[in-house]
Amino acid sequence: MSKILIKNGILLPMEKSLADAGDLYYQGGLFIDGNKIRAVGDIPADWRPDTVIDAAGKVVMPGFVNCHTHAAMTLLRSFADDLPLMQWLEEKIWPLEANLTGDDVYWGTMLAAREMIAGGTTTFADMYFFMDDAAKAVRDSGIRASLSRGMVGMAPNGTHALNESRELVENWQGQANGRITTMLGPHAPYTCPPEYLQKVMKLAEELGTGIHIHVAETKQEVEEITKNYGKTPVKHLAAQGLFNFPVLAAHCVHVDSEEISILANNDVKVVHNPESNMKLASGIAPVPEMLSAGINVALGTDGASSNNNLDMMEEMRSAALLHKVNKEDPTVICSYQALEMATKFGGQALGLPVGVLAPGMKADVILLDFQKPHLYPLHDVPAHVVYAAQAGDVDTVVINGKIVMEQGKVAAIDDEKLFREIRDRAVRLTRPSQ
Amino acid sequence: MSKILIKNGILLPMEKSLADAGDLYYQGGLFIDGNKIRAVGDIPADWRPDTVIDAAGKVVMPGFVNCHTHAAMTLLRSFADDLPLMQWLEEKIWPLEANLTGDDVYWGTMLAAREMIAGGTTTFADMYFFMDDAAKAVRDSGIRASLSRGMVGMAPNGTHALNESRELVENWQGQANGRITTMLGPHAPYTCPPEYLQKVMKLAEELGTGIHIHVAETKQEVEEITKNYGKTPVKHLAAQGLFNFPVLAAHCVHVDSEEISILANNDVKVVHNPESNMKLASGIAPVPEMLSAGINVALGTDGASSNNNLDMMEEMRSAALLHKVNKEDPTVICSYQALEMATKFGGQALGLPVGVLAPGMKADVILLDFQKPHLYPLHDVPAHVVYAAQAGDVDTVVINGKIVMEQGKVAAIDDEKLFREIRDRAVRLTRPSQ
Repeated sequence: MSKILIKNGILLPMEKSLADAGDLYYQGGLFIDGNKIRAVGDIPADWRPDTVIDAAGKVVMPGFVNCHTHAAMTLLRSFADDLPLMQWLEEKIWPLEANLTGDDVYWGTMLAAREMIAGGTTTFADMYFFMDDAAKAVRDSGIRASLSRGMVGMAPNGTHALNESRELVENWQGQANGRITTMLGPHAPYTCPPEYLQKVMKLAEELGTGIHIHVAETKQEVEEITKNYGKTPVKHLAAQGLFNFPVLAAHCVHVDSEEISILANNDVKVVHNPESNMKLASGIAPVPEMLSAGINVALGTDGASSNNNLDMMEEMRSAALLHKVNKEDPTVICSYQALEMATKFGGQALGLPVGVLAPGMKADVILLDFQKPHLYPLHDVPAHVVYAAQAGDVDTVVINGKIVMEQGKVAAIDDEKLFREIRDRAVRLTRPSQ
Repeated sequence: MSKILIKNGILLPMEKSLADAGDLYYQGGLFIDGNKIRAVGDIPADWRPDTVIDAAGKVVMPGFVNCHTHAAMTLLRSFADDLPLMQWLEEKIWPLEANLTGDDVYWGTMLAAREMIAGGTTTFADMYFFMDDAAKAVRDSGIRASLSRGMVGMAPNGTHALNESRELVENWQGQANGRITTMLGPHAPYTCPPEYLQKVMKLAEELGTGIHIHVAETKQEVEEITKNYGKTPVKHLAAQGLFNFPVLAAHCVHVDSEEISILANNDVKVVHNPESNMKLASGIAPVPEMLSAGINVALGTDGASSNNNLDMMEEMRSAALLHKVNKEDPTVICSYQALEMATKFGGQALGLPVGVLAPGMKADVILLDFQKPHLYPLHDVPAHVVYAAQAGDVDTVVINGKIVMEQGKVAAIDDEKLFREIRDRAVRLTRPSQ
């Protein structure tokens, strides 16, 4: 196992909360031993690294944790935009998804991993299908992921999806040097009826996994669930017993104060996807209220088809800006809080020791090159990262103690081959059928 | 004068509107002769360029027009954020601005020009002070700008500002090979009382200039103007006769349907600054309504202190996303409309022949490198530029027929010296006074 010293950088460890004493960022070193962080700040002079990275003029921080995406949908990036939701899904997205193969999902996930690594994302939570292929792309690319097979509870596909979910967990949990973890992914309350949710929970109990699900994304969903079950989605899922499991609840756009209390009391982890919610016009999630209630709100990009990238820096900025204007209060979601949502809260949402630079945490570290005109002068580091920086400022990426990107190049990925595969597959998928 | 051929690119000329027949983008060449575009599309084989740029895999489009900023406020980037508006201004921004020198404004504007060129902005409309120094930075950097001296109508500074405005127009209009144009900049209706506005209009008439002004940025402004003059800001300015001049009205956040009609009927050019309005929690401008009314709505970043960058790609994305979620309609402000606001409508707002690639227009052209993971596959060019691209994808920038940036380097600017100047000035400005 290798020992890496990152020296001379501006450390932004994300360990402290705003209420803590002491500096949120400071000059210092970071020592990585194997796949873990050994020390942050002052490094004993007699510690001998195998590799030294000079981070002068750079910010050293935890990699971003993208807590909700559908990675292989990169293949559908900018394929259909600016359309009403149902027209977008029924006429554009679903017909194209019906033609996806396992190989498509491998390459689409590889493209997503390539893009996320380039933008400083070191972990992502995925929900899609052909997850054996997605897992192979995670393994081959060097990124960390929490994978779930999206399940829609209609026979016969519902049973098939449960079987594939079991296979995913049994075959991939803990693989790729621990970089791959798994969850179950019942798609949403409106696609998974109660009897199916019960089967999912039984499997979750047997396998000891958490559950990744879409909740209260649109007003239509709330209306439909309320009509069918006499309860809003959050209350319906609570009544089903879903919150007895660790739950990663994507969106939670349309939740009232009572539902926020239910989410908080059950320690449900919420994933806010501001750009997807904006682009699809789903609505504005009550994130300040959820944070005030003590909910762990993480950030996600959602799929590239509704974003149209997997850029966590944009997502942080959009989160901070959107809630300020929505609440008519410029103090809402300050830059450091947006950073917490994109790092520390992401690690906590997935139950993984990532998102913070501290001894014992997994060595998922990124360097941002601050020697750029849009990052001068340097009055405040968190504000620069959230309000001024861009994904292209990410310079070096370490995941699980391994340098996976240096100077924009990802060692494990052949860009030329990747781009050719994507181009060919995009042409095939969008060609009108004969 | 040099002749440049840009060949093999994907042309996105922005000449067509959505209602026009024909492709919005296509493969082709661009021929630049001197400071103007000579031909777009098929270039006669016997035309002999001095310089050939191979744009294979790149998008060739007009440079962005940033129609409202305070360029030298780059010096205050991330100096104070997430604060209530008046505390931010009174405790942070104004005390620091009071210590700015002409040299500070030169270097702050130079940093802004460097950042804007890097992000594909080829023209900006500025309102600040020490404008002689700002003009020198525009001249030296190679960018194009419409400059105005911000005027606050209180004696004795009001008279001083009028004199400086006259000097700016007389000394700089048409300078730097025509790259510099000028306007008058009465700051806002709440800082310029009616008798002062009359003096401004008299000067505008004498000098033949347009007027750049902040209008209806906050609810507080609307309340104050309504209380003092019995009319909302738009109606008050109309009554004063301001709209008899070409007016560039920044913000227009709080305007109702009657005021939108007044703006449309008077051909007032509106500048939408979505990220500044979001970050300062000023509100959401009724942009879809203004566009429907036929108003030429351009885009601006506002100053770097309230953004915190000068990134027009972000601004386009924020404009498109914000209004979709605000109107609960994903079809509002499609990608091509956001592009029009950032290019063609910007040129029209400033009365300059820029923002469109067409024969006879000024040769302000940018190349975006699309060989990036976040820009694969290529289903749709406008959607990619607005929803997926980032400022760092800008590869080459031509302004007024001159290549000012290639492979990230701006020939006319010494980055090392620039960064040193900025660092030293930021330290001096933020040092507590003795």
